[in-house]
Amino acid sequence: MDTNDGRHVINNTESDARGYCRSFDTVFASASGAILTDTDGCEYIDFLAACGSLNYGHNDPDMSRALINHIETSGLSAGLDLYSTPKARFIESFKRLILDPRQLNYRVQFTGPTGTNAVEAALKLARKVTGRNTVMSFTNGFHGVTLGALAATGNKYNRMGEALHGVSRVPFDGYYGDDIDTTVMIEKLITDPSSGVETPAAFILETVQGEGGLNCASAAWLQKLAAIAQRHGILLIVDDIQAGCGRTGSFFSFETLGITPDMVTLSKSISGYGLPMALVLIKPELDQWQPAEHNGTFRGNTHAFVTAQVTLEKYWSNNVFQQQISGNGEIVRSHLQDLIDLIPNARLKGRGMMNGIDVGCGQLASKITKQCFAHGLVIETSGPYDEVVKVLAPLNTPETTLVNGLEILQRSVRQVTGKRPSVSPIKVDLDTQRNDVALASAINL
Amino acid sequence: MDTNDGRHVINNTESDARGYCRSFDTVFASASGAILTDTDGCEYIDFLAACGSLNYGHNDPDMSRALINHIETSGLSAGLDLYSTPKARFIESFKRLILDPRQLNYRVQFTGPTGTNAVEAALKLARKVTGRNTVMSFTNGFHGVTLGALAATGNKYNRMGEALHGVSRVPFDGYYGDDIDTTVMIEKLITDPSSGVETPAAFILETVQGEGGLNCASAAWLQKLAAIAQRHGILLIVDDIQAGCGRTGSFFSFETLGITPDMVTLSKSISGYGLPMALVLIKPELDQWQPAEHNGTFRGNTHAFVTAQVTLEKYWSNNVFQQQISGNGEIVRSHLQDLIDLIPNARLKGRGMMNGIDVGCGQLASKITKQCFAHGLVIETSGPYDEVVKVLAPLNTPETTLVNGLEILQRSVRQVTGKRPSVSPIKVDLDTQRNDVALASAINL
Amino acid sequence: MDTNDGRHVINNTESDARGYCRSFDTVFASASGAILTDTDGCEYIDFLAACGSLNYGHNDPDMSRALINHIETSGLSAGLDLYSTPKARFIESFKRLILDPRQLNYRVQFTGPTGTNAVEAALKLARKVTGRNTVMSFTNGFHGVTLGALAATGNKYNRMGEALHGVSRVPFDGYYGDDIDTTVMIEKLITDPSSGVETPAAFILETVQGEGGLNCASAAWLQKLAAIAQRHGILLIVDDIQAGCGRTGSFFSFETLGITPDMVTLSKSISGYGLPMALVLIKPELDQWQPAEHNGTFRGNTHAFVTAQVTLEKYWSNNVFQQQISGNGEIVRSHLQDLIDLIPNARLKGRGMMNGIDVGCGQLASKITKQCFAHGLVIETSGPYDEVVKVLAPLNTPETTLVNGLEILQRSVRQVTGKRPSVSPIKVDLDTQRNDVALASAINL
Amino acid sequence: MDTNDGRHVINNTESDARGYCRSFDTVFASASGAILTDTDGCEYIDFLAACGSLNYGHNDPDMSRALINHIETSGLSAGLDLYSTPKARFIESFKRLILDPRQLNYRVQFTGPTGTNAVEAALKLARKVTGRNTVMSFTNGFHGVTLGALAATGNKYNRMGEALHGVSRVPFDGYYGDDIDTTVMIEKLITDPSSGVETPAAFILETVQGEGGLNCASAAWLQKLAAIAQRHGILLIVDDIQAGCGRTGSFFSFETLGITPDMVTLSKSISGYGLPMALVLIKPELDQWQPAEHNGTFRGNTHAFVTAQVTLEKYWSNNVFQQQISGNGEIVRSHLQDLIDLIPNARLKGRGMMNGIDVGCGQLASKITKQCFAHGLVIETSGPYDEVVKVLAPLNTPETTLVNGLEILQRSVRQVTGKRPSVSPIKVDLDTQRNDVALASAINL
Repeated sequence: MDTNDGRHVINNTESDARGYCRSFDTVFASASGAILTDTDGCEYIDFLAACGSLNYGHNDPDMSRALINHIETSGLSAGLDLYSTPKARFIESFKRLILDPRQLNYRVQFTGPTGTNAVEAALKLARKVTGRNTVMSFTNGFHGVTLGALAATGNKYNRMGEALHGVSRVPFDGYYGDDIDTTVMIEKLITDPSSGVETPAAFILETVQGEGGLNCASAAWLQKLAAIAQRHGILLIVDDIQAGCGRTGSFFSFETLGITPDMVTLSKSISGYGLPMALVLIKPELDQWQPAEHNGTFRGNTHAFVTAQVTLEKYWSNNVFQQQISGNGEIVRSHLQDLIDLIPNARLKGRGMMNGIDVGCGQLASKITKQCFAHGLVIETSGPYDEVVKVLAPLNTPETTLVNGLEILQRSVRQVTGKRPSVSPIKVDLDTQRNDVALASAINL
Repeated sequence: MDTNDGRHVINNTESDARGYCRSFDTVFASASGAILTDTDGCEYIDFLAACGSLNYGHNDPDMSRALINHIETSGLSAGLDLYSTPKARFIESFKRLILDPRQLNYRVQFTGPTGTNAVEAALKLARKVTGRNTVMSFTNGFHGVTLGALAATGNKYNRMGEALHGVSRVPFDGYYGDDIDTTVMIEKLITDPSSGVETPAAFILETVQGEGGLNCASAAWLQKLAAIAQRHGILLIVDDIQAGCGRTGSFFSFETLGITPDMVTLSKSISGYGLPMALVLIKPELDQWQPAEHNGTFRGNTHAFVTAQVTLEKYWSNNVFQQQISGNGEIVRSHLQDLIDLIPNARLKGRGMMNGIDVGCGQLASKITKQCFAHGLVIETSGPYDEVVKVLAPLNTPETTLVNGLEILQRSVRQVTGKRPSVSPIKVDLDTQRNDVALASAINL
Repeated sequence: MDTNDGRHVINNTESDARGYCRSFDTVFASASGAILTDTDGCEYIDFLAACGSLNYGHNDPDMSRALINHIETSGLSAGLDLYSTPKARFIESFKRLILDPRQLNYRVQFTGPTGTNAVEAALKLARKVTGRNTVMSFTNGFHGVTLGALAATGNKYNRMGEALHGVSRVPFDGYYGDDIDTTVMIEKLITDPSSGVETPAAFILETVQGEGGLNCASAAWLQKLAAIAQRHGILLIVDDIQAGCGRTGSFFSFETLGITPDMVTLSKSISGYGLPMALVLIKPELDQWQPAEHNGTFRGNTHAFVTAQVTLEKYWSNNVFQQQISGNGEIVRSHLQDLIDLIPNARLKGRGMMNGIDVGCGQLASKITKQCFAHGLVIETSGPYDEVVKVLAPLNTPETTLVNGLEILQRSVRQVTGKRPSVSPIKVDLDTQRNDVALASAINL
Repeated sequence: MDTNDGRHVINNTESDARGYCRSFDTVFASASGAILTDTDGCEYIDFLAACGSLNYGHNDPDMSRALINHIETSGLSAGLDLYSTPKARFIESFKRLILDPRQLNYRVQFTGPTGTNAVEAALKLARKVTGRNTVMSFTNGFHGVTLGALAATGNKYNRMGEALHGVSRVPFDGYYGDDIDTTVMIEKLITDPSSGVETPAAFILETVQGEGGLNCASAAWLQKLAAIAQRHGILLIVDDIQAGCGRTGSFFSFETLGITPDMVTLSKSISGYGLPMALVLIKPELDQWQPAEHNGTFRGNTHAFVTAQVTLEKYWSNNVFQQQISGNGEIVRSHLQDLIDLIPNARLKGRGMMNGIDVGCGQLASKITKQCFAHGLVIETSGPYDEVVKVLAPLNTPETTLVNGLEILQRSVRQVTGKRPSVSPIKVDLDTQRNDVALASAINL
């Protein structure tokens, strides 16, 4: 193996498409809970959580155990859509613990195990069921980079000037300011026979736009949108890939908002262990797929079913986890609130455990996250200009770790903005609160 | 858990999009090598291998051990495109054991871990690099079902009447019969300024069309196509998702055919363990991606990197495995050759360990595979009319198991066609054979 | 010839696509100025003017004379884009009387002689010059029904559910009410890198939306839009097919509005005689056409050049005609203003000689225009719901005729709405004011 | 007016899109029959006939008279789709003289008066009626340059790299050589469910490809294609814009070929006088247009109806004209046959009065046509490489004029190829010939 810990071989051979390794320039060796450890033994608090794929943290011991047991007993890995015990167990738990208590009646489609595949399936099904050709997606939405999903995605950098088709773009809640109710605009476009905008097969949207800058749709706005969908036979698809699986406080991001989508896409944290998995929830009357009409070799990633089932039993059979999310969310927001004062015009964004601060420009945000990394915190930005510093910590991050991470963030903001530098040494704080992380982080500082 | 072994809960809740479970109506519990075992303890020889994702069989013990070790030491699961030790190791082994010995100089892009994501990335890059808008794909090609890849896919059932764009369809080798060299047609279309067909950014093709019916492109045809590509600045993309990773006898399907593609897509068996993984190999001068321009949360499925690296060291550091493939391929072909006589106009198709018999119509093929399943063999069809019974056994299937499977196939064909019915009752035979299978498997394991 | 005056043969053989003959159920035999005469000798005041193609009325005697002279001297009819004397004369007059006095420097492209062909040419050139793929068009815009122009057209009925591409739809001035400046929205969509809306090659718009319901863009709004275009390298295309050639009071609809488009499309009244003709005006630096890159057999309809040149010399060499338009416009608006009181919530729309009243719903508008026809007035509706009764009289309609027509309209509105029925017989009014029309109309009443 | 006869003003102001004036660098002043006269009084034999729009020659005196009479009696010019006497007369004559004698039952749709508008209408209707999204068009086909028609057009130069949609391109008769029956290929693509080619709404083709190089579809091939259309519910659209109106010897190009199209597009020579006019013939059961669903302001170019009706009565009420076409065609072919010997590998192409010689390369063809023009003959090229010198003389060109023109062509070929140079100086000959031309023309006039 390469003497310089792998970076050389990766840089020499991996495509220039690689991204995150440019921001977090160390080789990671292991990870537990909210802590990443590199090959030098340095530890980092993880406020990125594999872009929201690790809501339950790294290597949850119960999931590890279940997965090892599955492997040791020669459980299937690639199961296509054959009948298998792990799949049946996952479905049974999902129905019992997630769908039934919420009075949701959905059929479950397993697609190729990436979010974009689930989005492609949902959009194809919506077009098939309605017989309409276009869908409506929203400013700053992000749904993936395969061509069907990419058409619905706002990001110019990812759109790459591709000829994208079949999507009408409409403004998200608040896009034109608080005074303008964009649902009124949307319904006008749909009903005006001369607007030039087709009645779409579906609306597809995130209730909180994870990549688009943590813009939150209000319950009132969503309900109005759902009513428009109802009135015009438009399907409502909630892309809960990043905002689902507890990220906003409840299992689904929408369950507290007074809407019931016709379809829901889930991925990222659905396996709970960071393993590739994706699914579409479909109202039974819309489940008009022919067998294997939409397929994909890895749609039966059985390892993911095993860990996914553990997440359901462990975290969603009672209220404890949701209370933890709620408490952690409060902690995050109160710390971020303190930062607002340090940065002119900064704004707090997001909800649940999906929060961030809009610092006004991408350059500043980038300086802050770089400084954070130097102090042992992995954290990223989002938003059209990468101007939102985004806290995407595991939902079950222990309070001390969470606070440590937030204090690193505060310190970094102060350093970057030159405001109120902290007098007390970081080390002490860390030591008292988080033994494991402390030392390594302190060294990094 | 459901008393009737999971089928009930799955049928009641999983989307109608599910497919294979309709053909193989039992609940699978575990698998080793080329043998699947259901919840009743019945064993099945696996000639499907998760659609070619298990070239090395189920749960290779060395891979299992490496993966368990990775989990036990808290190795990363979801690694995005951060630097990590398993990724560095995979890349290093891939370069040393696969690329360098073949004098191939490629950069490696990890995409969302499904074949269709790799195809989408390759097509986007081809358009970006050449500045051209269309690609050429081939009759009976299959490249995935997300919209960009689906445009290049031939299958009508999967195309679903979607409005697909940016692909010109041209005839594969032999599509219009043996006497017609379709490359001549293709070059005429490209050079004729009034043909109405744009000079494409790329050709994308499989050297053996796995889903399209095991149509093989000849070396001569491919070389002519490559020369056309060269002459007109068209990139040559080989989709080696099903035919690669040893399936045709060599690591890449094209390495014995005298062509060097500009890009290669790999998925299915690249992880070796059935875990989702996909990559694009790109000639360095074409690696014009901007950081994260094409992304995907699970592009760093580290578990897959771990097992993938084991496959390289275990199977590709010397010639033993390739000899085994070659020998097994001979066995398959000689058995299939015998079947040709039983079915009027049947034809042997494929190469390496990617073989089948075209039985002339899908109904007959379906009867055969149903009969096979009744006798303990999991086998599927492909081709435009599902008319090709396709043997896609693990490459390292032990000879006895392989022969057993082929004998079940022969017996089933005889039963279905009513020819030379076996005297001894199948059931007894099967039992014996299945025991043999178990023994052989046990030894190999 | 058919005894029943031609309607029978037409109804039996012409496609169901025919439209206007359903509303105006008589066979027209001849026409002069603003008066149409049917085969029974009945006369009709023409407030439709071939959808705005007859701004100078029917069969202007000077144009008739010039055209007959051209024919008698064996002048070319179909001249392709060969050099010809009539083309040179038209261009010379156009430059001297239209472009130069307005300090406009445009090159003139003759396209296939229909408005939609000119629009297609302008859009293709905009994409070619900018290298961008999409254009922005506006709610309620109408630009033609060939696929490229149709994509930019708002009307659902004409769009026919076709898969249309390459157009982003944005709101016209006032679309969301008077309080919302839609240019702010448009620039936000263009500048936000995550809006999902591409920076377009061009804006294409009508300053007064003829088919869309006589919505007028204000000078302030247009200037802001032009400034956005300037800032982002977007071409500004004014489709002056209906609003140009004097319709709004000046030759170009935009010349009083403080903007200078990069391209202008003209058709309809450009020949002055109702003969097919269309052209695109192009800023010289944008005239990047290769020879015959955009072509069309009838792009040299020489008869149209002959009459077009007469219009320029006769009507545009001094201010008299513009004063007539202005005076006539005042007359129209003052009469329409009176109607407003008769219809709840009715609104006056348009400017110059392009005016109408929004009566709130298409059914009412249709009743009114039917009643008008019964009284000898040919008048049509426009708007998304056909809710705007539109006065599109020849610009040079004699005052008496114009007033007669408007009085028929007032009377019809009163009859339809049941309000203040006129006591005095129509006949008298007509007789005193318009001898030629009066009798026939009176009979029709 | 410009002293240098108009070229200066045109060159300075007309867009660079102008084409033919570059090849034929003189200013045309008048034209009669097959003779063009420039402002210097020089005469030119016209073998271009406005790209086939003047099958009856320039300024047919009967048409001139009828048109002048129409104008003098204040006949309508722009008639939209109102009922009018000239339209009724045209339809009645068309039905009586063209449709009924040929047992053709079509409804007539008048579109915007350019060929491309008719093509757009036909394609839209085909998609509407069948519910299918794509059409099949043929290599080297030319159907116009608005986006819908352009998608079906083969010419790269005109396609301009536009993103064109909804067309599958298939090989015309003989495209891959005489031994290959391309209809077999086409049906294979349509029936193979994995070909990647959709069953189209329609085939659209020219029976003789006017711009594509005078490639003729054989009756056998067309009948096989028509049978495929029949079998698969595909509409057969013959674009007879250039090949119709007598050009190939009969009114429709297809009437001697044993097929009856579902739709036919006509334009170019349908008005007979070079006036813009276009129509679609539609089988009654397919005439599923809603009123004005496809529209266009100039769809009622009444002047064109007037002259069109004259063509029908004058030329198509007996067999005389068809015999003249036949005789003239023989003359053309026999002269072209003589030229074949002068040029290595030259080939005679076309049929009826639509003939040419493929001289092998565009450069040579261009030299020949330039030389022709110097000698007083206006003639153009076609074909993918502009390699076919195309004789598109008026069908009723007097024999002497026709022979004169063909002799100029022969002389020019000899000069350009350096073979058998004429002994007598061209200038003198030409003068004589031109006199002959004048005389003959004079007689005919």
